[in-house]
Amino acid sequence: MTTTATTARERMLLAKDAARSIGLLGDDAKRDALLAIADAIEAAAPEIVAANAEDLRRGSEGGLSTALQDRLRLDEPRVAALAAAVREIAGLPDPVGRILDERTLTNGVSLTKVSVPFGVVGSIYEARPNVTVDIAALALRSGNAVVLRGGTAAEHTNAALVREMRGALADRGIDPEAIQTVDEFGREGARELMHARGVVDVLVPRGSAQLIETVVTESSVPVIETGAGVVHIVLDETAPLDWARDIVVNAKTQRPSVCNAVETVLVHRAAADRLVGPVVSALQQSGVTVHGDPSVERLAAGIVPATDEDWATEYLSLDLAMRVVDDLDEALAHIRRYSTHHTESIVTQDAANEARFLAEVDSAVVMTNTSTRFTDGGEFGFGAEVGISTQKLHARGPMGLAELTSSKWLARGAGQVRA
Amino acid sequence: MTTTATTARERMLLAKDAARSIGLLGDDAKRDALLAIADAIEAAAPEIVAANAEDLRRGSEGGLSTALQDRLRLDEPRVAALAAAVREIAGLPDPVGRILDERTLTNGVSLTKVSVPFGVVGSIYEARPNVTVDIAALALRSGNAVVLRGGTAAEHTNAALVREMRGALADRGIDPEAIQTVDEFGREGARELMHARGVVDVLVPRGSAQLIETVVTESSVPVIETGAGVVHIVLDETAPLDWARDIVVNAKTQRPSVCNAVETVLVHRAAADRLVGPVVSALQQSGVTVHGDPSVERLAAGIVPATDEDWATEYLSLDLAMRVVDDLDEALAHIRRYSTHHTESIVTQDAANEARFLAEVDSAVVMTNTSTRFTDGGEFGFGAEVGISTQKLHARGPMGLAELTSSKWLARGAGQVRA
Repeated sequence: MTTTATTARERMLLAKDAARSIGLLGDDAKRDALLAIADAIEAAAPEIVAANAEDLRRGSEGGLSTALQDRLRLDEPRVAALAAAVREIAGLPDPVGRILDERTLTNGVSLTKVSVPFGVVGSIYEARPNVTVDIAALALRSGNAVVLRGGTAAEHTNAALVREMRGALADRGIDPEAIQTVDEFGREGARELMHARGVVDVLVPRGSAQLIETVVTESSVPVIETGAGVVHIVLDETAPLDWARDIVVNAKTQRPSVCNAVETVLVHRAAADRLVGPVVSALQQSGVTVHGDPSVERLAAGIVPATDEDWATEYLSLDLAMRVVDDLDEALAHIRRYSTHHTESIVTQDAANEARFLAEVDSAVVMTNTSTRFTDGGEFGFGAEVGISTQKLHARGPMGLAELTSSKWLARGAGQVRA
Repeated sequence: MTTTATTARERMLLAKDAARSIGLLGDDAKRDALLAIADAIEAAAPEIVAANAEDLRRGSEGGLSTALQDRLRLDEPRVAALAAAVREIAGLPDPVGRILDERTLTNGVSLTKVSVPFGVVGSIYEARPNVTVDIAALALRSGNAVVLRGGTAAEHTNAALVREMRGALADRGIDPEAIQTVDEFGREGARELMHARGVVDVLVPRGSAQLIETVVTESSVPVIETGAGVVHIVLDETAPLDWARDIVVNAKTQRPSVCNAVETVLVHRAAADRLVGPVVSALQQSGVTVHGDPSVERLAAGIVPATDEDWATEYLSLDLAMRVVDDLDEALAHIRRYSTHHTESIVTQDAANEARFLAEVDSAVVMTNTSTRFTDGGEFGFGAEVGISTQKLHARGPMGLAELTSSKWLARGAGQVRA
């Protein structure tokens, strides 16, 4: 299903127009549309894999890193997984039409605040074909049209995926212009998307810290910043060794490449003798390189000396920075300076310190005695995750379908006027 | 209470630092601080009026319009009204610490989503000394520090108000750096405020459409757009004449200078003969100039011919544009094209058209059979109004104290790790 629009702007205007009918679809129609998309993607797996092979060939010739090539690669099982993810989103409850507030004015005017779709959701991301399908499905499930900019590295793959998704909508009698890509327009397309205020209602960047920073700085469309996690765990004076060790090892190694993996561990000086040796040793046995300050170096072998840069680094790898701090105040000051406000956790048995940590740490998710890996829409029971917001406006922390909706007030009267 | 900070950036950093302690204040402490501010403003009324006289003198010399001079003017009764508004905000319930969601994961980790202050709220506005006090009081009541940029026309007045408010905080042992102004730094101060991402958490512009557009376009700090209202009332085929007349006259004349006043009335062709004459006549009796399309001109005397520009104009005066439309579809298309997504109302007895209007109009407040003047935080029962958001992110429609808060998730575990 191709479009006649020949500029990025025209495509966005088509999406805005389509958003009107998409926003009025009922629960069943939206669910059916997603199931049709899942079927279409699965049926077109050979074509999608072939388009992906072309992207991979160009990537390999162009010197794309092995890690990025792996992220870009779609084989038939991965295509099936994409379709399965769409079916899961189809099964979620409709986030539109929820009653958020109700009031009756003394003059009898009744007010109802209901959830409504944003209208048009934009997304800018890099070399991740799964985001193409994921964001489109999440947007449609919440009654929104979507404009995608997925980067040149995945251009053929994204084009094939978008073509199949649009075709599935058209087959169901739903306006296919609800799914748009501006990939062909390169950087200019991305720029126009970032400046389409009034046409695109919200922009969700997904990808590197660099990409997100660019979007946040340049965009005049409101942005939901989903972001980097320089995530901290504090091992307090009273931290039990088994919890400290299990939580730190889990938070670092269970999936090191994601934003909720821990990057820095701060150990209370009064517990350093007791904790640093065994925790470092458990990390090293799991293949982690520990970058430590001089106090850590004195208490454990095989430590790489940490520099100031380590404290600010989101490794996303089997590396971890560790520092001994004098007390909770110093831990909180360190977090204030280096945290990206994603997730921080404390391991402690001290109720007062637990309360202080929960109250004073200014992050989307603040934890006690548990692994930072739980900051996740799936784990929180949202059924799907749009991203993890590290800003304070609109959404903070894991975002589900509800965060892809806005609201409006409905006021019903019988001739009332203001006195 | 003066500050040692000598640059706009330093002042904003002081506000960010103060936000930590302000955010931890309890309900009573915040209320007491506001009452102290109200007392201090009232006690300093002579100095504030004198500072205002200096601004007025310069304004008059500089050719400031009479309307702007009136908005700028503070006499003792107006100062008393400022203090009274602060006391009213003091009496509102604390918006911080509300439990917004609670979940327990199957592994026993408990999750609580609580409302928290943003941290630092910035505001850019023009020649309105009341906003200086209003925004500072609203920000503090919700546990936020505030950075103000109130424009050069009100510079002396704002400086006096800020000095009194800071003094009142210091007297109560609260960090006075929680209230900052960057007025002395002129346009450069405003520019730095708009680019203080990471220091200022949210920016609320108040003023002309031009000022809001500048802030929205230039700011990298997230903005809540409070805005212009090209507000529509549709008189449907079945509109009762008395409701149509009373609602239109009230919505236009009860206070013409505000954003929720109606600007355009769309009349169903099948009701035009019945409604246009009496409604126009009632408007004209209230001093309103009606700008009408040719159909309106045929049905009523004293009509100024409307141009395309009229449909897009927020008059904010005793002017009103009126057009006859063929049906509800044409009315909805007109609204889509010209609405600023603030408030629209339909007068109708037709349940199907009522339902369509409520579902299809994409505005912050959509009404049936009532005056658009009810779009107001006070009328909605919020007790205070931060502004009326015309964007879809975070807040839409009248904003109360709750909209000056963000949220965070607290996760409490007992050693759980992710499998």
